[in-house]
Amino acid sequence: MIRVGILGASGYMGGEALRVLLRHPEVELVWATSRTEQDAEMVHRNLYGAGVRLIHPDKITPVDVVFASLPTGNIMTMTQDLLADGAKVIDLGSDFRLKDVDQWNSVYGKTHVDPSLVAEAVYGIPELHRAKLQETRVVANPGCFSSAAIFGLAPLVQGGFADNGKLVVDGLSGTAGAGAETDTSIHHPEIGNNIVPYNVVGHRHTFEMEQELGFLTDDDVRIHFTSHYVPITRGILAVCHGFLNEPVTREELLDAYREFYDGEYFIKVYDMPRDPGAPWQHRPYPWVNAVSGTNFCHIGLDVDEERGRVVVFSVLDSVGKGGALAGVQNMNLLFGLEERIGLDFFGLHPY
Amino acid sequence: MIRVGILGASGYMGGEALRVLLRHPEVELVWATSRTEQDAEMVHRNLYGAGVRLIHPDKITPVDVVFASLPTGNIMTMTQDLLADGAKVIDLGSDFRLKDVDQWNSVYGKTHVDPSLVAEAVYGIPELHRAKLQETRVVANPGCFSSAAIFGLAPLVQGGFADNGKLVVDGLSGTAGAGAETDTSIHHPEIGNNIVPYNVVGHRHTFEMEQELGFLTDDDVRIHFTSHYVPITRGILAVCHGFLNEPVTREELLDAYREFYDGEYFIKVYDMPRDPGAPWQHRPYPWVNAVSGTNFCHIGLDVDEERGRVVVFSVLDSVGKGGALAGVQNMNLLFGLEERIGLDFFGLHPY
Amino acid sequence: MIRVGILGASGYMGGEALRVLLRHPEVELVWATSRTEQDAEMVHRNLYGAGVRLIHPDKITPVDVVFASLPTGNIMTMTQDLLADGAKVIDLGSDFRLKDVDQWNSVYGKTHVDPSLVAEAVYGIPELHRAKLQETRVVANPGCFSSAAIFGLAPLVQGGFADNGKLVVDGLSGTAGAGAETDTSIHHPEIGNNIVPYNVVGHRHTFEMEQELGFLTDDDVRIHFTSHYVPITRGILAVCHGFLNEPVTREELLDAYREFYDGEYFIKVYDMPRDPGAPWQHRPYPWVNAVSGTNFCHIGLDVDEERGRVVVFSVLDSVGKGGALAGVQNMNLLFGLEERIGLDFFGLHPY
Amino acid sequence: MIRVGILGASGYMGGEALRVLLRHPEVELVWATSRTEQDAEMVHRNLYGAGVRLIHPDKITPVDVVFASLPTGNIMTMTQDLLADGAKVIDLGSDFRLKDVDQWNSVYGKTHVDPSLVAEAVYGIPELHRAKLQETRVVANPGCFSSAAIFGLAPLVQGGFADNGKLVVDGLSGTAGAGAETDTSIHHPEIGNNIVPYNVVGHRHTFEMEQELGFLTDDDVRIHFTSHYVPITRGILAVCHGFLNEPVTREELLDAYREFYDGEYFIKVYDMPRDPGAPWQHRPYPWVNAVSGTNFCHIGLDVDEERGRVVVFSVLDSVGKGGALAGVQNMNLLFGLEERIGLDFFGLHPY
Repeated sequence: MIRVGILGASGYMGGEALRVLLRHPEVELVWATSRTEQDAEMVHRNLYGAGVRLIHPDKITPVDVVFASLPTGNIMTMTQDLLADGAKVIDLGSDFRLKDVDQWNSVYGKTHVDPSLVAEAVYGIPELHRAKLQETRVVANPGCFSSAAIFGLAPLVQGGFADNGKLVVDGLSGTAGAGAETDTSIHHPEIGNNIVPYNVVGHRHTFEMEQELGFLTDDDVRIHFTSHYVPITRGILAVCHGFLNEPVTREELLDAYREFYDGEYFIKVYDMPRDPGAPWQHRPYPWVNAVSGTNFCHIGLDVDEERGRVVVFSVLDSVGKGGALAGVQNMNLLFGLEERIGLDFFGLHPY
Repeated sequence: MIRVGILGASGYMGGEALRVLLRHPEVELVWATSRTEQDAEMVHRNLYGAGVRLIHPDKITPVDVVFASLPTGNIMTMTQDLLADGAKVIDLGSDFRLKDVDQWNSVYGKTHVDPSLVAEAVYGIPELHRAKLQETRVVANPGCFSSAAIFGLAPLVQGGFADNGKLVVDGLSGTAGAGAETDTSIHHPEIGNNIVPYNVVGHRHTFEMEQELGFLTDDDVRIHFTSHYVPITRGILAVCHGFLNEPVTREELLDAYREFYDGEYFIKVYDMPRDPGAPWQHRPYPWVNAVSGTNFCHIGLDVDEERGRVVVFSVLDSVGKGGALAGVQNMNLLFGLEERIGLDFFGLHPY
Repeated sequence: MIRVGILGASGYMGGEALRVLLRHPEVELVWATSRTEQDAEMVHRNLYGAGVRLIHPDKITPVDVVFASLPTGNIMTMTQDLLADGAKVIDLGSDFRLKDVDQWNSVYGKTHVDPSLVAEAVYGIPELHRAKLQETRVVANPGCFSSAAIFGLAPLVQGGFADNGKLVVDGLSGTAGAGAETDTSIHHPEIGNNIVPYNVVGHRHTFEMEQELGFLTDDDVRIHFTSHYVPITRGILAVCHGFLNEPVTREELLDAYREFYDGEYFIKVYDMPRDPGAPWQHRPYPWVNAVSGTNFCHIGLDVDEERGRVVVFSVLDSVGKGGALAGVQNMNLLFGLEERIGLDFFGLHPY
Repeated sequence: MIRVGILGASGYMGGEALRVLLRHPEVELVWATSRTEQDAEMVHRNLYGAGVRLIHPDKITPVDVVFASLPTGNIMTMTQDLLADGAKVIDLGSDFRLKDVDQWNSVYGKTHVDPSLVAEAVYGIPELHRAKLQETRVVANPGCFSSAAIFGLAPLVQGGFADNGKLVVDGLSGTAGAGAETDTSIHHPEIGNNIVPYNVVGHRHTFEMEQELGFLTDDDVRIHFTSHYVPITRGILAVCHGFLNEPVTREELLDAYREFYDGEYFIKVYDMPRDPGAPWQHRPYPWVNAVSGTNFCHIGLDVDEERGRVVVFSVLDSVGKGGALAGVQNMNLLFGLEERIGLDFFGLHPY
């Protein structure tokens, strides 16, 4: 059994880790923390009866792996000690995501305290970095929008089908992405019938997208990203637009996507025929509610032959495949387990 | 392995059975039917990649147990043949729920074709009929509102605390309860910011509630029930009001509830102190989204000492503990399995 | 022109007063206050371009009438001064609603500073107190749930059709009812797919309901009230249940309701036939979204002859006919205007 | 008084025309039609008590102006007769929107029967074609997405700030945009927590956008448009992205927008400073719920200097400024009235 601790289990991200790890057959949950000691079920009612007590972070003990869901800048100061105590660290936050430390300092408005860890950390997308994830001690779990956009664009960027300097991404997020702290932007009377743009230019996840997609091409990748909250609780849709370098058919692009994700259980490419008269569920554009609460990412695409544009839809759950559940997948890799273990469940319909 | 078939898997109830049975460790899914043959993932996108083909009901083969989610009046004509082929039958519909066949005929506007099966069928609430469910061949799975109200009221009715002839229940249902067929009442532009009362008197589930609660007392139980759709997708809240026969404290009632449900894993009684100033999640009134997609029922209650009223809140998922998942729990009983198998997962937070 | 001031215009209630008074043909808005001076459009984006500056309450000047939307206990200390300056006062809050000052002290946990004003104040339901509202200087505008329940129950209580000591009311409120301050109970990730019971016994509006309905009968009126937030932004549904004293038909009750509200423009009784097979919009149960943003209250009812129960549905907007717009109607009365002026617009469909 | 008829008043677009025209001080509503004769309040509950009977289209009589909200291809066959009877025609549908009849035939899959009317018709955006709208007999009211995108992009395209051949627009629509007919895509259990892409390439409104924006520049305008339903009932957000031809500041672009819309009452440009730390309502990105039910369009924008992108947000109501209310504005122009008459009301907060 893998002995696991969770730093920061009272938020939505840590709570999702807790939910899944409590039922992971190879995991023993040793502790989960919260600044306010309390029963986990008092913040996560879905866990009513689970019998988990959240403890103060001062009381943690050595474990095999730590999931960290802390405010930016916290885990970078603790990681060396955790490693020294024999733990591996999966950061669900943003401390180790950007390889360029100067860029990190600029984007996050802080000074990174441990660039050596940045160098050691592996960006936590198994579909791109599986081999390294089996060897590392530190995982930089990706941002939620980053995951969605990277999954949606990786085959396109690698294949050089579109102008990699003019990729436009509109990100639509459920309100869970804003976190458990109350805020006017997701106050129900304000957002219940609304769409709230935020971080419309310069969103921090943009830099992760450009970094990771940049590894797949010699082109200078530029992601033109804007994010919005929509009145759903969970899930993210990344709508990705590219301008085709030369004509390509939808079927040719689908081939590239199927090949790129061949054998990847958690990435599903929608390759149904494009038939505008088909029943709605038969159309090849994924629905975000199909993957809520899961580690799946669904991808669909279409081509506007007349105008030379490709549009790719990528959906995942911001605390699922875009967060804590991807972290569990990474843990499985770190410990040599089959990737699906503890994660092989479906979403809900309806959701 | 239990060999299972699902009659009617394209609706929400059958789809939920499918979702959970595909991952039940003791189940082999042999077939699932739909009048339109198609891949299950074409109606239930959450199952994308599951590789399940829905077949026409004409093509079914013998199995150990059949889950039926069919329009009223269908499974009663097929059950004898299924039993003769060695199957047990779990009806997720309404054909065998009412013990009084004349009442059934009147309530459903049809003539029942097989009263002997009604006599044999056991009402599928393990918490009330566990022993019989281990012996029967036919399970009458309860209606969704019936389950919620029965769980909420059973200890109250049995204990005789309130006037059992004047129990008022307001049922609030998510739109999944209306089913997959499109309908004006749950057309998003109409219901998105709305509350839609329906079946405001004489709802069919009323009779189940009175039947089952009537078994717990010598009183003439009368449930004054009204149902509404609210703009959530899944889940039911039953708000149950009773007029106390004589003064009783909240704590005394909680004792009765805890005792009644002692050892019942899937029924959780909220016994936190009543503290109007406590953080919201600490208050003893259950939230329906905590049990969505699960087999749990959460119950909380309070007492208006000044006016002599008790109010009980009972939440469950109409296709979960109020439907298909309760059916799986019943299947576990029918086959001598531990009740939790295949059902021991938590809901989502947020949902 | 009536010169109007609004005390507390940054919240939802004051903002609604502002919206309608800005377009009232007989009103000149002189000032509106907020503790933070700012353009009104910076808190109420619907008013973008209206050119209204919210001023600090210290800067107010004499006007003909003051609408007050302040925390409990504030306006009772200011009213004598306002009256002395020649203004009438319409309190959209709760300072003058309860005629029994001891009860008020107990319910609100404060000591009332000016019982003489309580005696002078008229409860602001024109349909019950029109003549007095034309004479008074102080209006106690009703609570939102109180309005809905009183409108739904008044003809029933007055007619003595049901047991007036056992009236059960489930109140379902949109989140605007909770106000503009962020709070976990209406944090979108928590409430978006949820129903949140609150003030489940002893809700303060209960006492107003009992007071006002008590004026209509010699019976001891007891309202058994429980409130919930549902994930709609505006509007209230009061579901009112009564136990019939003796058999009465739906049509007889409708007669009583039509007679009671005869000539009342803002109260609409749904008297369509009860036909369970009719299109949804033809059924006689009102929908809350039809009255959002308006001064209308829609009422419908049905009778369970078998069990001797009547259920009445009453819908209104908590800041409309249940709040600020009723306040404007009261202002029209105070100043001898036609009641509909400035209020004679329809709601939206869809909403 | 202008004598008005509405062809097709049972849908959402016609119902909105009805709602506003009933309270327009210069209008006498003579008739409104529906294939099923019935009281308007039976399809539009917001009009309960309005006393409007919808009549069969066979029964219409001469009026001064006809609003038509009919399926594509219907009004083009009736318009000559209506004109001969002295009426002006405001088509809220799509029969006269595209000036290129061959393109219309191709886009709508029909053969246009009256190209002379296409030539005569004026595209119903007063902010672009005011003078012509004062002279014409036939108005082609714009598509909802077209209105939003055109308002958002017109100053940008005219100013030549960005690459007019690579304008990307993501359109997010409330479900009212899909109409009153039930459909799986807006069945509440499917859409309640979902985002549904549709017409992802080749949306018919694309051609209107390119036509109208093309009039403002010599460039070949190409709009790369994709539409989605989000779970709000009303309103549209067009997120418009452009690649800057050369560096330009946000302030310079705002100047161009303010100048372009100078004096336009119904178009509001958000020119607050860009301050990521400001309260949410102070940020310069419009919220769609602020304009629901109104004839306003709110526009905001920002610039990514580092990547050379401009993003413009444009919000309106698909049956308001993007539909029936713009039609009323056009009617005011046709009859020489002040443009605001009957339309000068604010939206709701909260909505």
